[in-house]
Amino acid sequence: MSKVGIIMGSKSDLGIAEAAIKVLKDFSVPCEVIVSSAHRTPERTGEWARGAENNGFSVIIALAGAAAHLAGVVASETNLPVVAVPVSATTLGGLDALLSMVQMPGGIPVATMAIGSAGAKNAALFACQIIARSDAELNAKLKSYRENMKQEVYKANEEVQAMLNGAQ
Amino acid sequence: MSKVGIIMGSKSDLGIAEAAIKVLKDFSVPCEVIVSSAHRTPERTGEWARGAENNGFSVIIALAGAAAHLAGVVASETNLPVVAVPVSATTLGGLDALLSMVQMPGGIPVATMAIGSAGAKNAALFACQIIARSDAELNAKLKSYRENMKQEVYKANEEVQAMLNGAQ
Amino acid sequence: MSKVGIIMGSKSDLGIAEAAIKVLKDFSVPCEVIVSSAHRTPERTGEWARGAENNGFSVIIALAGAAAHLAGVVASETNLPVVAVPVSATTLGGLDALLSMVQMPGGIPVATMAIGSAGAKNAALFACQIIARSDAELNAKLKSYRENMKQEVYKANEEVQAMLNGAQ
Amino acid sequence: MSKVGIIMGSKSDLGIAEAAIKVLKDFSVPCEVIVSSAHRTPERTGEWARGAENNGFSVIIALAGAAAHLAGVVASETNLPVVAVPVSATTLGGLDALLSMVQMPGGIPVATMAIGSAGAKNAALFACQIIARSDAELNAKLKSYRENMKQEVYKANEEVQAMLNGAQ
Amino acid sequence: MSKVGIIMGSKSDLGIAEAAIKVLKDFSVPCEVIVSSAHRTPERTGEWARGAENNGFSVIIALAGAAAHLAGVVASETNLPVVAVPVSATTLGGLDALLSMVQMPGGIPVATMAIGSAGAKNAALFACQIIARSDAELNAKLKSYRENMKQEVYKANEEVQAMLNGAQ
Amino acid sequence: MSKVGIIMGSKSDLGIAEAAIKVLKDFSVPCEVIVSSAHRTPERTGEWARGAENNGFSVIIALAGAAAHLAGVVASETNLPVVAVPVSATTLGGLDALLSMVQMPGGIPVATMAIGSAGAKNAALFACQIIARSDAELNAKLKSYRENMKQEVYKANEEVQAMLNGAQ
Amino acid sequence: MSKVGIIMGSKSDLGIAEAAIKVLKDFSVPCEVIVSSAHRTPERTGEWARGAENNGFSVIIALAGAAAHLAGVVASETNLPVVAVPVSATTLGGLDALLSMVQMPGGIPVATMAIGSAGAKNAALFACQIIARSDAELNAKLKSYRENMKQEVYKANEEVQAMLNGAQ
Amino acid sequence: MSKVGIIMGSKSDLGIAEAAIKVLKDFSVPCEVIVSSAHRTPERTGEWARGAENNGFSVIIALAGAAAHLAGVVASETNLPVVAVPVSATTLGGLDALLSMVQMPGGIPVATMAIGSAGAKNAALFACQIIARSDAELNAKLKSYRENMKQEVYKANEEVQAMLNGAQ
Repeated sequence: MSKVGIIMGSKSDLGIAEAAIKVLKDFSVPCEVIVSSAHRTPERTGEWARGAENNGFSVIIALAGAAAHLAGVVASETNLPVVAVPVSATTLGGLDALLSMVQMPGGIPVATMAIGSAGAKNAALFACQIIARSDAELNAKLKSYRENMKQEVYKANEEVQAMLNGAQ
Repeated sequence: MSKVGIIMGSKSDLGIAEAAIKVLKDFSVPCEVIVSSAHRTPERTGEWARGAENNGFSVIIALAGAAAHLAGVVASETNLPVVAVPVSATTLGGLDALLSMVQMPGGIPVATMAIGSAGAKNAALFACQIIARSDAELNAKLKSYRENMKQEVYKANEEVQAMLNGAQ
Repeated sequence: MSKVGIIMGSKSDLGIAEAAIKVLKDFSVPCEVIVSSAHRTPERTGEWARGAENNGFSVIIALAGAAAHLAGVVASETNLPVVAVPVSATTLGGLDALLSMVQMPGGIPVATMAIGSAGAKNAALFACQIIARSDAELNAKLKSYRENMKQEVYKANEEVQAMLNGAQ
Repeated sequence: MSKVGIIMGSKSDLGIAEAAIKVLKDFSVPCEVIVSSAHRTPERTGEWARGAENNGFSVIIALAGAAAHLAGVVASETNLPVVAVPVSATTLGGLDALLSMVQMPGGIPVATMAIGSAGAKNAALFACQIIARSDAELNAKLKSYRENMKQEVYKANEEVQAMLNGAQ
Repeated sequence: MSKVGIIMGSKSDLGIAEAAIKVLKDFSVPCEVIVSSAHRTPERTGEWARGAENNGFSVIIALAGAAAHLAGVVASETNLPVVAVPVSATTLGGLDALLSMVQMPGGIPVATMAIGSAGAKNAALFACQIIARSDAELNAKLKSYRENMKQEVYKANEEVQAMLNGAQ
Repeated sequence: MSKVGIIMGSKSDLGIAEAAIKVLKDFSVPCEVIVSSAHRTPERTGEWARGAENNGFSVIIALAGAAAHLAGVVASETNLPVVAVPVSATTLGGLDALLSMVQMPGGIPVATMAIGSAGAKNAALFACQIIARSDAELNAKLKSYRENMKQEVYKANEEVQAMLNGAQ
Repeated sequence: MSKVGIIMGSKSDLGIAEAAIKVLKDFSVPCEVIVSSAHRTPERTGEWARGAENNGFSVIIALAGAAAHLAGVVASETNLPVVAVPVSATTLGGLDALLSMVQMPGGIPVATMAIGSAGAKNAALFACQIIARSDAELNAKLKSYRENMKQEVYKANEEVQAMLNGAQ
Repeated sequence: MSKVGIIMGSKSDLGIAEAAIKVLKDFSVPCEVIVSSAHRTPERTGEWARGAENNGFSVIIALAGAAAHLAGVVASETNLPVVAVPVSATTLGGLDALLSMVQMPGGIPVATMAIGSAGAKNAALFACQIIARSDAELNAKLKSYRENMKQEVYKANEEVQAMLNGAQ
């Protein structure tokens, strides 16, 4: 079965990565997590990326902050889809990581999500959308996930109506 | 066979979209192009997005400039992977389109590429990477594409060496 | 009587919306609040926007953060004046929401206010200014509101004089 | 009949203002244009703004670049709705004018449009939307304007299809 | 004797203004403080600025946050030197106030200092430098102030040496 | 008589400096221009700054681009008022020079004007305002300069009216 | 033996400088620390920089915040390599210090590191790399430092695996 | 003798690199240039970087634009000093490349210069400063280079004096 690899540059990115891990668990999509840095462990990062396709991964999610080269470095070593999550790890609020990830030159694509937990959650959903192209069951789960989100918004709306009516 | 949909908000985005169209043609991946605006033709955009899965699309590429809502609006109507290309269409150099696309809130993923032609080229390559998950032939083409890029860099290096030696 | 619709993308925007709700209550302008997302509940958002004119709304205030498409999506479905309030909901301090709202391409206007509570307050005052074009009583209230603000500044000045004199 | 006032800080803003003037002419909404600066002719600007309501204006559109105080200065002297158009007049691409206009503190609303001609066009459409609240004929024109925009996008789509088919 | 006027747009700017007031007190330069808003009390602000020269002011310091028009509005009504202090009052960290103050178009100068307390302190020192052009005693005080700052840096250096040696 | 010193970091800044030189000539305020770099000729820059007061200067205008240290370096060597003009000399549009000049830490004031020619013009006007504190004739000239600006705006307005009427 | 000089503009930068001091101590590279400001003690800063080469320094690390001129001022007085560390000392998150340091005009190089502690740590490592060009023992230490970093990432990875397995 | 390696990600960066090549030639410091991409030829880039020390390089200069990972990737494979030159290759004016280079996380230093040709020139001068630590002749050349720059500024100053006097 299709498997998602989550690579993060530093243990401190785990708090953000958990938003992705949770989504994949909810969708019963297997995932493996690795801490490996583009700069401090380039050899292991390269090996892991080069072997990812043969090791059964379908999609890779890379999280990193600051001068976030991890997603680009992984993408340079594989033709698997690489999804990037910029982490806000400096005083610049993640703008550095965002530009380091999204502005990839032509030839080596990296698909960038929003900065932080919202991006990590969406990276996992996006990985599911990719896998769902050849997994009808997962596709059905994505549809009911959307339906649930819709119901949650409806419920949030009702709660707000109740609060505002109660406040009058 | 898997098909890519390219949607752009304005005819003026065609110059950027062509970088994506060319890649898909080179990879013999069928694509359909549509000009449809999130704001001026919301009904058609919504219908097209809702019907995309049934109409045989596997991936959608959305290009737009300024307050670039197109990718998010399409993504809100489909579970297909949506890849966004920000276009520099204002005096802010595409930063407006980039943030409008990449900062999607949790729940509805949009995968953002670089601003402009480099992003459009990469969006098409990324679409190929997604389709290649279940298309071994396309996967092989992606590998030889990488090999070609490598050779081009080697050749560029040789040209630079020749120029610099000639200049001495 | 003229009615203002306040739509917000998430329940978490309510804290900001309250600055608008309070102003409208102070001016006795009826308002209805709805939580509906551009991305998670596009259908309901579209229906609500398309029906807004017939349902007696005169002005719509839309609040959203991050890639804030809500105001543009609503504006694409109605000819009522749409006033946007960017919410600071990410590490970028609301700049993402501001650019997503204010940089609307030609054809579909969205009137953008400041980021956060100041913007929400001003959105409500601006809605009153629109309605006051055909409501002389409301126009008179706006004039006395200005007069009160003036008096508050005069009073603040006196307090500061007292503090500074006392500190000497 | 309702009249729109267009005030610009400098004659050099006229090129941008023309996008607004054209829309108002197309909608047969009378408008008056004045060049008056917040800084160089504060007295005239103040008088014009204070007199605007009595002189039959319904909406004011203010265009300015750089430290663009004009919209705020006008708004401080009237309760008419003031719509601001930031002009890109410096090396900062209009970001200075945008922030000078949109970040108004609570109490004095200014409704800001996009930087440049797109913003000027939308300012005029927004003024029409305000006036249309009590002018059914204008409201009908706005609806057919939307319909025309829709048809133009459809036509642009057909042109692109023809180009792409011809290019094959 | 020369007198400095300090005008601030809101009572909440007083915390920042105090850095200026303290410097002027230390230099025995008389100052008067007024809370008056460009937008909420335009009439009083204009009157105060127009009368400033006749009322014995030599320099004006204006503090404001957000779309900070106060310095420009005051400068448009007087030929006294106007020194601006941007205040960080929004989620944009004072960048909005800075650009609203510093990017004045040609003809009406505003002299802008750093954002926040450092700027307020420097505004007062700069006012002293202006007044010192015709006040030799004040000029001498400025020179000994510099000398004191120098000694403080020397002392700070000694403290750091002691700390580092103690830490070894 | 009071004299203004204009220091620029590079000969290439002369085009911007000319806007200041012209204003000073128009006001018959003597000025001396020097090209001296904070980095390439630190000794001469320091000497010039330290001697400026004794050499009869009243105000110093410093122009520089990129990491624009010139104004700060000059200000660190004199108690004369130093007015800074950021020059757009890189791909960042002068934002680098602006922040390098305006964000001076507390203790050493630098009064920053707008980026480019508008800033240079205003620097000269501001220098005149400083000198005019003890030069009634110059003060009168500043007042008639304002009056002339006012008349020019009135004339620009008339020209625009004529153009718009002619265009109908 | 080669010695590193660390100069900081203010005692408040010591917290950041400690990350550099610690690295140099770990590598047994002697360093001297000085607090001296570009603006408040220009004479001492200049003397220190001019004497640095003769006093046995090999590399200089300069830390400063806001309009951070210190590195450039030091670099203008010496041909030793100057490494700059921007400090986040204002509401702009260190972007002001970064641009003030990195955008040096051609002729006087300053080598800029990341904002804050990460930059200070890297400045010290970079100084070691420079000194290691003629110090084989230090070069060997740098290699084992890299190896240690690698092991730490491996260990962090194992900890994360343990946490995630434990969490299942 | 010490040798400088110049690596650039794309042949299109050569125009910028030439500013560095010229300086090294002027100083008779041997250099080798290579075009090799972090993303398109990661293997060759890695090999080149790992071998650089043994191949006699003392300093590496890396130029790249957009998401500029090249300097970081090279630095992850060597303990030689790596100097980075951000190239403006997108609509963001080089801010993307600057942040991708300068914001390196702690452990792997990259020394960043200004965006574009000024940065390339300074990278070469900085490489000379490093090599000059153990090359007295080169150190002397650096001193006379500074002296020449000084004379050029003096000459530029004389030219400006002549122009201004001639213009009177």
